[in-house]
Amino acid sequence: MPASYTTKKTAVKMTGAVRSRSAQTGNSQSRRAEPSPPRVVIENVQPAVDGGRFAVKRTLGEAVRVSADIFAEGHDALTAVLLYRHASEAGWREAPMRELGNDRWEGSFTVGELGSYVFTITAWVDHFRTWRRDTEKKLLAGQDISVELRVGASLIENTAGRAAASDQKELEAWAASLHGKSRVQERARSALNEEMAAKAERYPDRSVATLYSSELPVRVDRERAGFSAWYEFFPRSAGENGKHGTLADCERRLDYVASMGFDVLYLPPIHPIGHTHRKGPNNTPESGGSDPGSPWAIGAGEGGHKAIHPQLGTLEDLRRLRQRAAKRGIELALDIAFQATPDHPYVREHPEWFRHRPDGSIQYAENPPKKYQDIYPFDFESTHWRELWEELKSIFVFWLEQGIRIFRVDNPHTKPFAFWEWVIAEIRKDYPETIFLSEAFTRPRVMYFLAKLGFTQSYTYFTWRNTKHELTQYLAELTQTGVREFFRPNFWPNTPDILPEYLQYDGRPAFAARLVLAATLSSNYGIYGPAFELLENTPLAPGREEYLNSEKYQIRRWNLKQPDSLHDLIARVNRIRQENPALQNNRSLRFHDIDNDQILAYSKSSDDGSNWVVVVVNLDPFHRQSGWLQLPLEEFHLDPGQSYQVHDLLSNARFFWQGARNYIEIDPHAIPAHIFLVRRRVRSEKDFDYFM
Amino acid sequence: MPASYTTKKTAVKMTGAVRSRSAQTGNSQSRRAEPSPPRVVIENVQPAVDGGRFAVKRTLGEAVRVSADIFAEGHDALTAVLLYRHASEAGWREAPMRELGNDRWEGSFTVGELGSYVFTITAWVDHFRTWRRDTEKKLLAGQDISVELRVGASLIENTAGRAAASDQKELEAWAASLHGKSRVQERARSALNEEMAAKAERYPDRSVATLYSSELPVRVDRERAGFSAWYEFFPRSAGENGKHGTLADCERRLDYVASMGFDVLYLPPIHPIGHTHRKGPNNTPESGGSDPGSPWAIGAGEGGHKAIHPQLGTLEDLRRLRQRAAKRGIELALDIAFQATPDHPYVREHPEWFRHRPDGSIQYAENPPKKYQDIYPFDFESTHWRELWEELKSIFVFWLEQGIRIFRVDNPHTKPFAFWEWVIAEIRKDYPETIFLSEAFTRPRVMYFLAKLGFTQSYTYFTWRNTKHELTQYLAELTQTGVREFFRPNFWPNTPDILPEYLQYDGRPAFAARLVLAATLSSNYGIYGPAFELLENTPLAPGREEYLNSEKYQIRRWNLKQPDSLHDLIARVNRIRQENPALQNNRSLRFHDIDNDQILAYSKSSDDGSNWVVVVVNLDPFHRQSGWLQLPLEEFHLDPGQSYQVHDLLSNARFFWQGARNYIEIDPHAIPAHIFLVRRRVRSEKDFDYFM
Repeated sequence: MPASYTTKKTAVKMTGAVRSRSAQTGNSQSRRAEPSPPRVVIENVQPAVDGGRFAVKRTLGEAVRVSADIFAEGHDALTAVLLYRHASEAGWREAPMRELGNDRWEGSFTVGELGSYVFTITAWVDHFRTWRRDTEKKLLAGQDISVELRVGASLIENTAGRAAASDQKELEAWAASLHGKSRVQERARSALNEEMAAKAERYPDRSVATLYSSELPVRVDRERAGFSAWYEFFPRSAGENGKHGTLADCERRLDYVASMGFDVLYLPPIHPIGHTHRKGPNNTPESGGSDPGSPWAIGAGEGGHKAIHPQLGTLEDLRRLRQRAAKRGIELALDIAFQATPDHPYVREHPEWFRHRPDGSIQYAENPPKKYQDIYPFDFESTHWRELWEELKSIFVFWLEQGIRIFRVDNPHTKPFAFWEWVIAEIRKDYPETIFLSEAFTRPRVMYFLAKLGFTQSYTYFTWRNTKHELTQYLAELTQTGVREFFRPNFWPNTPDILPEYLQYDGRPAFAARLVLAATLSSNYGIYGPAFELLENTPLAPGREEYLNSEKYQIRRWNLKQPDSLHDLIARVNRIRQENPALQNNRSLRFHDIDNDQILAYSKSSDDGSNWVVVVVNLDPFHRQSGWLQLPLEEFHLDPGQSYQVHDLLSNARFFWQGARNYIEIDPHAIPAHIFLVRRRVRSEKDFDYFM
Repeated sequence: MPASYTTKKTAVKMTGAVRSRSAQTGNSQSRRAEPSPPRVVIENVQPAVDGGRFAVKRTLGEAVRVSADIFAEGHDALTAVLLYRHASEAGWREAPMRELGNDRWEGSFTVGELGSYVFTITAWVDHFRTWRRDTEKKLLAGQDISVELRVGASLIENTAGRAAASDQKELEAWAASLHGKSRVQERARSALNEEMAAKAERYPDRSVATLYSSELPVRVDRERAGFSAWYEFFPRSAGENGKHGTLADCERRLDYVASMGFDVLYLPPIHPIGHTHRKGPNNTPESGGSDPGSPWAIGAGEGGHKAIHPQLGTLEDLRRLRQRAAKRGIELALDIAFQATPDHPYVREHPEWFRHRPDGSIQYAENPPKKYQDIYPFDFESTHWRELWEELKSIFVFWLEQGIRIFRVDNPHTKPFAFWEWVIAEIRKDYPETIFLSEAFTRPRVMYFLAKLGFTQSYTYFTWRNTKHELTQYLAELTQTGVREFFRPNFWPNTPDILPEYLQYDGRPAFAARLVLAATLSSNYGIYGPAFELLENTPLAPGREEYLNSEKYQIRRWNLKQPDSLHDLIARVNRIRQENPALQNNRSLRFHDIDNDQILAYSKSSDDGSNWVVVVVNLDPFHRQSGWLQLPLEEFHLDPGQSYQVHDLLSNARFFWQGARNYIEIDPHAIPAHIFLVRRRVRSEKDFDYFM
């Protein structure tokens, strides 16, 4: 016997799929005694990350499409309902589910508020609907249904007992019409009354329903978490005439950034920089006295993680920069790098937060045999870990209080997972709009786990995925598997740390191709500029992926008006992204066949399918490449017999295509890609010109 | 802060992967305060069915190979241990785990007792092993390691504190040798002492270990659950000269069954058969007075599910049949069909176990508009469901008490899932050796769910999978996905209910091919005889898959000595299965390329790889087919440059092959298959003859 129904030792475990719903609402005549256990099984509910241990991610206004295997023994009709609520709400909202076939069911709800939602499913054997279905079959087969009419009358009477007062009388009258004195034929007609059936279905008997064993969480972020274009530059290089730049100089750079269409401006750390073991240009071990040092070497006499480098300016300057950026639609993102130089105030004030060696020295960072003596990692296993964790949290809070809502977190994979899960949850309680970008370039499971723990966006391996095979495989993993539910990629073709080989040898066409790939394959992307748009591609040494004269260690002067700048192309690509909802999601990504391994073709579409963008990129930066592109016209409701227009939003050229196969040819030295908006052939004055 | 470490509102959820191990065994000097949360994550533990909701299935003596993603932030060395125990044991046993690469770890244990095991994983950051690894790297790089030696000495002293008395002194001496007065070079040599390191690793610091969040269950069955050959026949057709057969007649049939090599003899229901609405030959609605009726129409004046049909014999006869079968290595399996005829004693004694219609009649079985008036289904939703469930359980117990340990359960998919989970668990408490075969031919999710709930073996869709594509796809699902952990297929080329189309038109070659496929693709298989071996293939009507003059409704006479009987081929196939461990599992199944869609090629191997059997079947029963077979020689440690022998165990022919590609030609009118034992070319007197 089920444990919940008896105290005898013969107890069935009523866990999981066959667990009973505790709420007993039934007043069904035949169920006066304790009901038998629920018959419906609910399994394999999607989306779920690790069975509900972690939240599925969505942005405001998105739909959560929930599916599940729902079935019972035998052939009775089932009803399933999706239950969902915002974490702040006490009661469930309900949405209907429908069967897709083969015992798979689906329903959906839309998330309209920041924070957390949960959802689950309830389902039951629906005796009323079973009766109606079977009675109809029997009628069609010409069988005598007089007994069935009496069964139905009884079911409807029970339904009336559950109904709202306004419907009760009508249902009772319906029941009476079924076991009344009139002829069977007449009563049968009444039994099939669709309108009354719809009314009755509003009051189902849910007394023996299965409730799915878990409540699955959904985390809702604001829209920018899912669609953003980042621009990174070093404030200290924004000065004029080679002087150390300031936050005021950054203000003067805002129009330039806005003109390219970026909406996030990310600044490397702006804190005082340590002097002990300060690195010189090109990461040389000891710097000359005048070298500026690495911004990631945080902490000096002037302060640590809550201070601004005196040469950059003041908190007031930062707040003004933030406000002026906001006016241009640009949001400021700061860098959070949890490490200290030997000069950081923490070292003096809280030596207990660092690991001490038997000789009394503090343990510097190392990856044996490499030593990083300019950096002290925090000791997260310190006996004073609680105070340390609280202090680190307070760093986020400090910048949140200055109006910052986006953080690019440096090397989260070298700090404990439990810390991230805790601190991100803490921050989101008060600031649910905060965006955390995980800068973890490490093993795949670690990168994914950080995303599960709460990071909003993540750096990726895109930086090293160059060939058609590599890109197709990686994007399939990111957008077509369970990974998409928790990991939001942010594609960067370069960073101050990484000048990938592909960009080093191949010049402008390579930069342009990587830009288009990053911006259209991923709804979140970013570049490190002005190095990127000015095509900086000299490595530290042959075979190395670091920049020569990296801005990490020295101030650089850039000529933003350089004639070969990619400024205009970037501006165009960002405008295309803004204007086409298709490019604002990753879920709809599909690769398309083209018979040339140097050409990558794919498309994205908006949720309602009305916006369909096809991107074709020549991955070969040296040679003109061509091939026959195959598009799945039916999926986009294009008649293969009708012509349609593809409008290249990059070149503004328009082509008149027919059928699924069309010829593509791309010269990398012009623009190495097409971004086609596919227009169905609709006869309107707008399209008339081109189809004459 | 983690909830388990503080009562402040700032609480991190320490669930799942970062949950702390409660046992605190550490006496490490640096950890006097509450330790920081565990750093290691344990995820994606396999094998597990629905996250541990259901048990993974194994048979006695099999290994459970456990793998998991195990990782921490940073680069410290980890140690992971597999914990397992039989449900009857209080404490964990431990087995080491090793990293396979890319954060995937593996370990295994062997199940030696019937019943249930559970396993889980614990893992921790191993500071001792991290120290040794890093110190070695620093030494190799020629760095000064005097401080590291002091760190190590301290770690080893702590280790000595945890060590057994016998090792303590030695470890203390080792620690002393590291921070002694001798030269660094000498102390460094001591630090690298492998023997002492191995000793120290026996006493790791597990004070901050992660314990995986679930204990995953394993159900252990006896070996026959995983490897069995079933033979089904109707006892009433075993009589001589057309008389109603008896259990005594079945005894006389045992030698025949044994000569074919079967080890399970399954009898359709042997209970009294109802008279009301009894079906006549070929399922005609009403029978003549002398028709025997369907054995699945259970219950008459003489009794119900615990009685034996008087014309078959007595309980004593059954016990004798069971014993005599056992002497021949054959185990008896009975049919459990939970349904009653209108004449069943239950109907009179327990009308409350059936559904009543408003006219006072009992609801017969139906699938509208079809009616089965000879059958009353039990009402599992009856208010008296508890008593009903107990009674149904007592039916199993009754036959268990007669020595029966295998049940073929009829149509379990029409009874509630909760009932099966409960009753199977109940039975297995007292009779863990019981085998339940689920006869559910229904939707895939329902079939799989019944297996999850506890059924030991299951009927499958094999009966309708005929082409190379169909078989390859279906077997991949059964043997290479998570399905293999809970669903044990039992392949039947025919049943009394199903004469598949493939067998109807294609005669002897088709029967032989289906026999070889069933017996070699699945370690459990069965046939319904003598219809099968005597090539009975006349359908009820063209396009129907039922037998004409089905034994379900009438007594049949069979000529077992019919010259074209498959008796000898079946005997050979069953002997090959017995002699080759490769064919006693499904997990090792691999399909191999052959350039002909009418030929299916696959192989299986024993756990240790020593027994490798390659099967090649011509699926075309009409024509000779040929092709080039491609074998993965490397996987089986065969040198592509050396010749090897393939011994066709069906025809006893031996072939001398070289390289991965070899020519195959099969005439379906001889034997439509090869079952090759692949012999490595080992020079022994046994092989000498053939390689001269």
